[in-house]
Amino acid sequence: VVAVPALAKEEALPEIQWRMASSFPKSLDTIYGAAETLSNRVSKLTQGKFQIRVFAGGELVPGLQVLDAVSQNTVQCGHTASYYYVGKNKAFAFDTALPFGLTARQQNAWFYFGGGLQLMRELFKGYGLINFPGGNTGTQMGGWFRKEIKNLADLKGLKMRIPGIGGEIMSKLGVVPQSLPGADVYPSLEKGTIDAAEWVGPYDDEKLGLYKVAKHYYYPGFWEGSANLSFIVNQKEWDKLPPLYQEAFEVAAAEANLIMLAEYDAKNPAALGRLLKGGAKLHPFPKDVMEAALKEANKLYNEEAAKNPAFNKIYASWKRFRNDEFQWFRVAEATYANFTFNNVK
Amino acid sequence: VVAVPALAKEEALPEIQWRMASSFPKSLDTIYGAAETLSNRVSKLTQGKFQIRVFAGGELVPGLQVLDAVSQNTVQCGHTASYYYVGKNKAFAFDTALPFGLTARQQNAWFYFGGGLQLMRELFKGYGLINFPGGNTGTQMGGWFRKEIKNLADLKGLKMRIPGIGGEIMSKLGVVPQSLPGADVYPSLEKGTIDAAEWVGPYDDEKLGLYKVAKHYYYPGFWEGSANLSFIVNQKEWDKLPPLYQEAFEVAAAEANLIMLAEYDAKNPAALGRLLKGGAKLHPFPKDVMEAALKEANKLYNEEAAKNPAFNKIYASWKRFRNDEFQWFRVAEATYANFTFNNVK
Repeated sequence: VVAVPALAKEEALPEIQWRMASSFPKSLDTIYGAAETLSNRVSKLTQGKFQIRVFAGGELVPGLQVLDAVSQNTVQCGHTASYYYVGKNKAFAFDTALPFGLTARQQNAWFYFGGGLQLMRELFKGYGLINFPGGNTGTQMGGWFRKEIKNLADLKGLKMRIPGIGGEIMSKLGVVPQSLPGADVYPSLEKGTIDAAEWVGPYDDEKLGLYKVAKHYYYPGFWEGSANLSFIVNQKEWDKLPPLYQEAFEVAAAEANLIMLAEYDAKNPAALGRLLKGGAKLHPFPKDVMEAALKEANKLYNEEAAKNPAFNKIYASWKRFRNDEFQWFRVAEATYANFTFNNVK
Repeated sequence: VVAVPALAKEEALPEIQWRMASSFPKSLDTIYGAAETLSNRVSKLTQGKFQIRVFAGGELVPGLQVLDAVSQNTVQCGHTASYYYVGKNKAFAFDTALPFGLTARQQNAWFYFGGGLQLMRELFKGYGLINFPGGNTGTQMGGWFRKEIKNLADLKGLKMRIPGIGGEIMSKLGVVPQSLPGADVYPSLEKGTIDAAEWVGPYDDEKLGLYKVAKHYYYPGFWEGSANLSFIVNQKEWDKLPPLYQEAFEVAAAEANLIMLAEYDAKNPAALGRLLKGGAKLHPFPKDVMEAALKEANKLYNEEAAKNPAFNKIYASWKRFRNDEFQWFRVAEATYANFTFNNVK
């Protein structure tokens, strides 16, 4: 009897069961795992009352249709890479990655303290969605090439698996970009149907085994200086949640954001070591490739800003923020990195 | 009546009030603020039942005695930099920073996926404590010098405010290290009682106004390639918490870890700009200074490992992890950073 008044003061916790459509296969375990991290934490923070069941890409809806499914409330929430939806609006890329864009730390600084999250939420709101940063891969690799690339001219006519804006930029450099799902990359490279393919970084790339059929491993993936993954929630479903469940979701997304990057950073070094032992040859992209790509990226951004008001608005904030970040990071952070990474043994 | 069985199934939420002793003054608002971030989130995740009131350094106990106070249960928890306690055991430095150590991302990778958190918890357990990573500053600056440092010889006899292991290394290079609280740094530099002083980075340094009395601003702070702050909790108090409150504390600490770094990364660029406009002159430390410091750091670590079993055990894990991280980060991450930071405008 004594306990009843105390309990009555607490907010009643309703049982809520959601489904989350991930865009990713379980084989991309670090990315897919971020959704599980969130789901587990939300459950524990709500005494098991708010359950979010995660489905891999294709189980509920195809990986590239997660935004539509959540927007239409076919499923309450999703975990996706917003740049999959640049066909709807190129401004979605600011949520994930743009060539020569922010590093992982800078992306978080922009989201949480540079107005970035608010700007992205204005865009998502138009689709009936609310978004939460939820994981990052760090700088990705530039991919696997069957032949060495000695200069810009060597890219001419190369068939490369590279989707999105990265592919657009590469096409300006003479590459013929291809869209292929992960499972088709190995056989296509082996047969020579394609000449090159980018995927993620050492840990995920190793699983595809591409070093066996295209040993030249280029860096950096200048189109993904970092890649943020986001949790997206149907706004109406979000609004129905008790505040406690909203708190739980939000803080669990922040944790997933932190943890996914830490996991990639921990797993990539050993994977790179194994790839090198397996015969992979590391090369930086030639300087003229990087410079030509930067020029084309800036051109593309200016053209898009001129015709797309949403892109224009976000680009103005993002570009100013990025350029300021770059000026600061080249001082303490990059100087420390360059000295230690090259001299400490 | 219908609601009672449903409520009865939930864990009863007791009202718990804790105090948290921060080691930091409110003027270090980004660091101090991480404790407020945690406190606010924990309150909201527990429907206001678990309240943690944060006290600035000196309010409950002096900033450098937070570990003792929490260990003795004078206060239930604290927010501190573990390297303040190297006098007890030098191994505490692995929780915060060591010269030529891990960057912020690498520190998290080590904590969460490299066995680092487990190793640190073994150390803290001996003091009746459990620790949670709770914020990072990123790479710090090397500090303010009244005169330009052109080579290693210029450090000879210099009186520099630099505490801890950084100070130990500097003393091997001929510097006379000084321990001074923040408030004494400006007048000491102005009078010439000291020749140089390190503090944090642009955002915090600006508030002390050191550029007015020592304009040469050196980078990087090689003794703090990153600096992790930790939440520490008295183990007995922790064990008394309901699992839900433990979950709330743990996830809120992870969020504070993410957010503090993002806040520094967002605030430092503009502060650096203002410092440069105010007359600060940026310089990298000369190469011979960096090389001599690295040599002395390695010597110190080997000497300590030979006589300190706790240090030896953690150093073995940390060193292997660090060196692997450095080999990977120099590939995609550093190459991307170096190109973009220097070429993107």
